[in-house]
Amino acid sequence: MADLPEKRAAFMDWYLAVVEAANLTDKRYPVKGMNVWTPYGFQARRRLDELMIREIEATGSTPVEFPTLIPETEFQKEAEHIKGFSAEVYWVTKGGSSALDIPLVLRPTSETAMYPIFAIWIRSHKDLPLNVYQIVNTFRYETKTTRPFLRVREIHFFEEHTCQATEDLATQRVRSNLAAFAQMAQALCLPYMAVRRPDWDKFAGAYYSIALDIPVGEARTLQIGSIHHYRENFSRPYEIRYEAPDGSQSYVHQTTFGLSERLIGAVVAVHGDGKGAAFPTSIAPYEVVIVPIPGRSPTTDTVGLANEAARRLRAHGRRVHVDTSDERPGAKYYRWELAGVPLRIELGARELEHKEASCTDRRGTKGSFPLDRLEEEVDRRLAQYDSAIYDAARAQFRSAFALARTLRELAGSVHVRVIAWCGSEACGHAVEEAIDGSLLGTPEGELPLDLPKLEKCLACDAREGLRWALAGRSL
Amino acid sequence: MADLPEKRAAFMDWYLAVVEAANLTDKRYPVKGMNVWTPYGFQARRRLDELMIREIEATGSTPVEFPTLIPETEFQKEAEHIKGFSAEVYWVTKGGSSALDIPLVLRPTSETAMYPIFAIWIRSHKDLPLNVYQIVNTFRYETKTTRPFLRVREIHFFEEHTCQATEDLATQRVRSNLAAFAQMAQALCLPYMAVRRPDWDKFAGAYYSIALDIPVGEARTLQIGSIHHYRENFSRPYEIRYEAPDGSQSYVHQTTFGLSERLIGAVVAVHGDGKGAAFPTSIAPYEVVIVPIPGRSPTTDTVGLANEAARRLRAHGRRVHVDTSDERPGAKYYRWELAGVPLRIELGARELEHKEASCTDRRGTKGSFPLDRLEEEVDRRLAQYDSAIYDAARAQFRSAFALARTLRELAGSVHVRVIAWCGSEACGHAVEEAIDGSLLGTPEGELPLDLPKLEKCLACDAREGLRWALAGRSL
Repeated sequence: MADLPEKRAAFMDWYLAVVEAANLTDKRYPVKGMNVWTPYGFQARRRLDELMIREIEATGSTPVEFPTLIPETEFQKEAEHIKGFSAEVYWVTKGGSSALDIPLVLRPTSETAMYPIFAIWIRSHKDLPLNVYQIVNTFRYETKTTRPFLRVREIHFFEEHTCQATEDLATQRVRSNLAAFAQMAQALCLPYMAVRRPDWDKFAGAYYSIALDIPVGEARTLQIGSIHHYRENFSRPYEIRYEAPDGSQSYVHQTTFGLSERLIGAVVAVHGDGKGAAFPTSIAPYEVVIVPIPGRSPTTDTVGLANEAARRLRAHGRRVHVDTSDERPGAKYYRWELAGVPLRIELGARELEHKEASCTDRRGTKGSFPLDRLEEEVDRRLAQYDSAIYDAARAQFRSAFALARTLRELAGSVHVRVIAWCGSEACGHAVEEAIDGSLLGTPEGELPLDLPKLEKCLACDAREGLRWALAGRSL
Repeated sequence: MADLPEKRAAFMDWYLAVVEAANLTDKRYPVKGMNVWTPYGFQARRRLDELMIREIEATGSTPVEFPTLIPETEFQKEAEHIKGFSAEVYWVTKGGSSALDIPLVLRPTSETAMYPIFAIWIRSHKDLPLNVYQIVNTFRYETKTTRPFLRVREIHFFEEHTCQATEDLATQRVRSNLAAFAQMAQALCLPYMAVRRPDWDKFAGAYYSIALDIPVGEARTLQIGSIHHYRENFSRPYEIRYEAPDGSQSYVHQTTFGLSERLIGAVVAVHGDGKGAAFPTSIAPYEVVIVPIPGRSPTTDTVGLANEAARRLRAHGRRVHVDTSDERPGAKYYRWELAGVPLRIELGARELEHKEASCTDRRGTKGSFPLDRLEEEVDRRLAQYDSAIYDAARAQFRSAFALARTLRELAGSVHVRVIAWCGSEACGHAVEEAIDGSLLGTPEGELPLDLPKLEKCLACDAREGLRWALAGRSL
């Protein structure tokens, strides 16, 4: 197999080669941008789904599922929203050989599918909060070049939609979502920044949007999720009202929280290296691969030993694969490194004789241990591995930011730029022009670098209303 | 709330009323036949999915996911198949405001999505067997009256697709699927019959089809799943070939196994009664509901007692809901019976004082037990409950069949008819006309009634090629 392109020099070429070599998805399906989840890639997705489900349900959210198809009439109720999506929706216009009376949209997101029903479900303050989520596929008629997991036309999507009695409670839900995402990101060993988007770049229909961004190769940023506060922007057109204890009627305040298969792309992009993908233990399709090394004597039953080790690790709750294919051990090592398996265990004649196991984690850390300590050693080494890839990702994350003091300093940088900004749209656009990218917005929380005192807007020199902001080029 | 219609006298009215009263699905979504999975109904579906996943993976099947949209060009490769489906597919013809070059079909089933990729994945005998499944939604432009779970336009669907080296191995896979379904049906406490459909009623493109049928109200049968042997019918047009060890090329033999949300409809239809739905423990959204009865004295903390009991049962792996809503206890009992919860526990001042719990299962069996035996008593009572509903369903199943000796005996029966059939299509159609229904096919395995010796075909009096067959009216 040919070498991978260099990650630093040719990030996207490297990314595409890794996704393909690791066999995470098959893009040979005859509709561009609609890819097949392979058996291997599907396992990563299944683990990711479980992670999202666990964290969101811990915050009191309940799964539901709304239909895939949305009637044109519902889709067009919120003006900003339809403006934001109409260029990229797929239309179902025919059933059998007849034209449909009302064309149907393949959901690009589910506000317009859910909210007419929320208006029926919610009558009283007792029906609030309504916190529901679904994990479904959404569809975008993407005209830009598609990239597996990062920009696709059928998207594996997580969306929470909530209705709260007041704006304040909706703000609290936004905070709760941020905390849930922090847990998910930790499990994925992914450092990220939560960034409140500028008004001109918020979600179509939102009051405000907080994006979850990560820096990725070639001085780009990737949005891996978003949390929106809608205030009453949707509840008014969809008439989602409740009766308060005093008998008065109010519109609900809504929030949404969206994540997608991009998180798998982010895991590949952040943890991968010159040898291929590298999964954090949490979503690794296999946490451990065991390679039995054929012995010279036919009585050397390393396959039996491997199967017994696998049985023990599975009983201990680990996802394990025993590679008994007829490739050479070296070829197997190469392939499972490409596939990003956290820990490899080798069992040969020597290991059999000494009742021990040799192991190598995906970062190349080697070791050996007595087989009777198999379970605890695997636990310990996987924890060490996660901690090591998280540390490496944090170092990479920290080095991705740099301060820019003037518009001129914005251009041509390999960093996400941290700037002092007065908050005006004019200055925002000046920044975007200078960097040939986006003003990502204002960070929620600490940035991973030492900042001087805020003095003046880098575009207009104003000294009022100053805040730190981020600027970069999104992928 | 109004009484339910009578199950025996007006089965479909009863069914629709139960599904609505139990709040399993919301059919007020503005596209007919596309329903909303409510929080409660979704939990039953989730448990059903888990059950299907567990049983199919135990037979060596691996999850994948193929795109929802299928290009017209792929969809039309297998002539019989397209003939079977073209009248009921939804067509996507537009992206944004442009017409698509190649229209896309919303998958009605995934043969035509998967098989072009199988042709790429399979090269050698080492790639076989390929046993993959997906749980996705499929779409049918249904022109008949839609019914929640039973006949809908967006269908929650399980589909396994396998490729085997030989016809014989494909036949073995069909047997393996039948065994896996037997496990699932047992968990659902559902007696069923596996019936090989007559040639004129097999799946479009199949070599043969085995349907999984159950008798349901008003002398009907409901197909709740199917298993198909395709031989080379699809592998030839899609060119799915493998190289044998001797270097020769052969087409694979394929099978599929399909199940759907109809299983939830079947559970409602079979176990439900005049008080509402009745879930088997395996897929019950809540296995136990605890109702604390307010005491006269404010120091009587029955809510605390209920929460503590729930905590213990959850730690024991049970799905439990504590109903602290402000309804009267009687109203709660009524509602959770409608919803089909297997076991209700009541905790009032008396129970608090005696450190015991009162309980009633969904069949009305009452009891009480010391609270320190909570976990084991709940386990025991749920097992008893499952066993009781299974017994009741089996009795109902047995009484659903009756022998018909002549064409005249076929008409107007409340039974599924068991007939002696010569196997000819002409006699099959004569039967269908006489019963104003279908010749369901020949049963695989024993029927639950004593049968005389096979003597002659009930339609043509032939004494050759005789077999027992079933005839009925499908729902």
